[in-house]
Amino acid sequence: EIVDSLIAHGKTLGHEPESPESSAQLFAGIHIMITAGPTREAIDPVRYISNHSSGKMGFAIAQAAQAMGAKVTLIAGPVELSTPDKVARTDVVSAQDMLNAVEREIDEQDIFIACAAVADYRIAAENTQKLKKKAEELSLTFTQNPDILKTVAQRKQPPFTLGFAAETNDVENYARAKLEKKQLNMIAANDVSIPGLGFNSDRNALLVITKEHTQKLAPASKSALAHELMLLVHSEYKRTHKN
Amino acid sequence: EIVDSLIAHGKTLGHEPESPESSAQLFAGIHIMITAGPTREAIDPVRYISNHSSGKMGFAIAQAAQAMGAKVTLIAGPVELSTPDKVARTDVVSAQDMLNAVEREIDEQDIFIACAAVADYRIAAENTQKLKKKAEELSLTFTQNPDILKTVAQRKQPPFTLGFAAETNDVENYARAKLEKKQLNMIAANDVSIPGLGFNSDRNALLVITKEHTQKLAPASKSALAHELMLLVHSEYKRTHKN
Repeated sequence: EIVDSLIAHGKTLGHEPESPESSAQLFAGIHIMITAGPTREAIDPVRYISNHSSGKMGFAIAQAAQAMGAKVTLIAGPVELSTPDKVARTDVVSAQDMLNAVEREIDEQDIFIACAAVADYRIAAENTQKLKKKAEELSLTFTQNPDILKTVAQRKQPPFTLGFAAETNDVENYARAKLEKKQLNMIAANDVSIPGLGFNSDRNALLVITKEHTQKLAPASKSALAHELMLLVHSEYKRTHKN
Repeated sequence: EIVDSLIAHGKTLGHEPESPESSAQLFAGIHIMITAGPTREAIDPVRYISNHSSGKMGFAIAQAAQAMGAKVTLIAGPVELSTPDKVARTDVVSAQDMLNAVEREIDEQDIFIACAAVADYRIAAENTQKLKKKAEELSLTFTQNPDILKTVAQRKQPPFTLGFAAETNDVENYARAKLEKKQLNMIAANDVSIPGLGFNSDRNALLVITKEHTQKLAPASKSALAHELMLLVHSEYKRTHKN
């Protein structure tokens, strides 16, 4: 019955998309913080580890949330994107930088959307001088970065939390496990192994998972998808958080 | 006396810069290949290692060489730059890709300018699935990438070779050692630890080193610097390579 009601909901979304006007004030008075893009973890002054996140999905969500009336704070890793209108943006480089920026303003947030592809690991001991190429083989040791989303979700009074999962295999299982382990309200999963969708693409498709529901958002432009996703966030937020 | 003549040359360059018209045909009929930007070495389908090279210096050199009449081939790593006018560009990702692209056309080149910041190492065994965050610590083993510049310089009939050295300390010594070890005609070194110059900046300063000479090119826009550098390349090329 849960699945049925979901499919019905999905169909409703698909057939009668809310017009921009009707959704313009959905998030009025609501503070939403969004992280976007990759982080970069320095190996030495020249080299770094990063990932293929372009930041486009996070920026599209920031734009959609703002268009729906939210007060949006965007914390962005190194990306080549311009700031959406009326969105407050802070630029960061590393995962630790991003956590610091998030924590500075998290108290005022009602909804936290972790769209950034935060590096799981940083180098254990950063080299202050450029490493020289000597050995045939090089071994580097990495240590876990702080988990920003988990840190936010574990606060005494956490905001509504939406996480993302970029997976190459077994997408739904990994995403649901992440939802439960980190105690999130919602997770949006995408399969980054599908060519033409996800990282660096202008299109994406998502599997949106809550404790009880799974809903597929079909391939679309990231901006259309961001709008659909924020409608789902809105109904789940209204259902789970008192006003 | 060598130093004196160099300083005199430097002063000449500084005080009487050749006008675009007078240098317009310096490289007429000469093929120049330039590598530019960083390379990216995949750790898994999502993560990679790269470096802070923006490609701006290499693209400025390509533009300057073309303006001086050369037939220019530009082999570029992942950068956010548009192709200079009348320059043939090939885009690559990894060091191995870049070597392949260089080798495909190196036979026709008179001058090879290795401006790319090629990753010295790639991961020993690339992971085809995304690594999961499990252990508190992660150890990765890297293996040396092919040395593109050395490969070109060691050919039976090598083109004139200009290498670059981005260093954070002891710049001149490291650069001169690289020149000798790789048997280059010329090396251009910059200190990437100076704020406002080098990586990602629009300005740079260079120390241009040949077997007998060292010449400082003072801080300037990368495009002005590229023009000065190509004048030095021209005189050294004419001196060392029969026409």
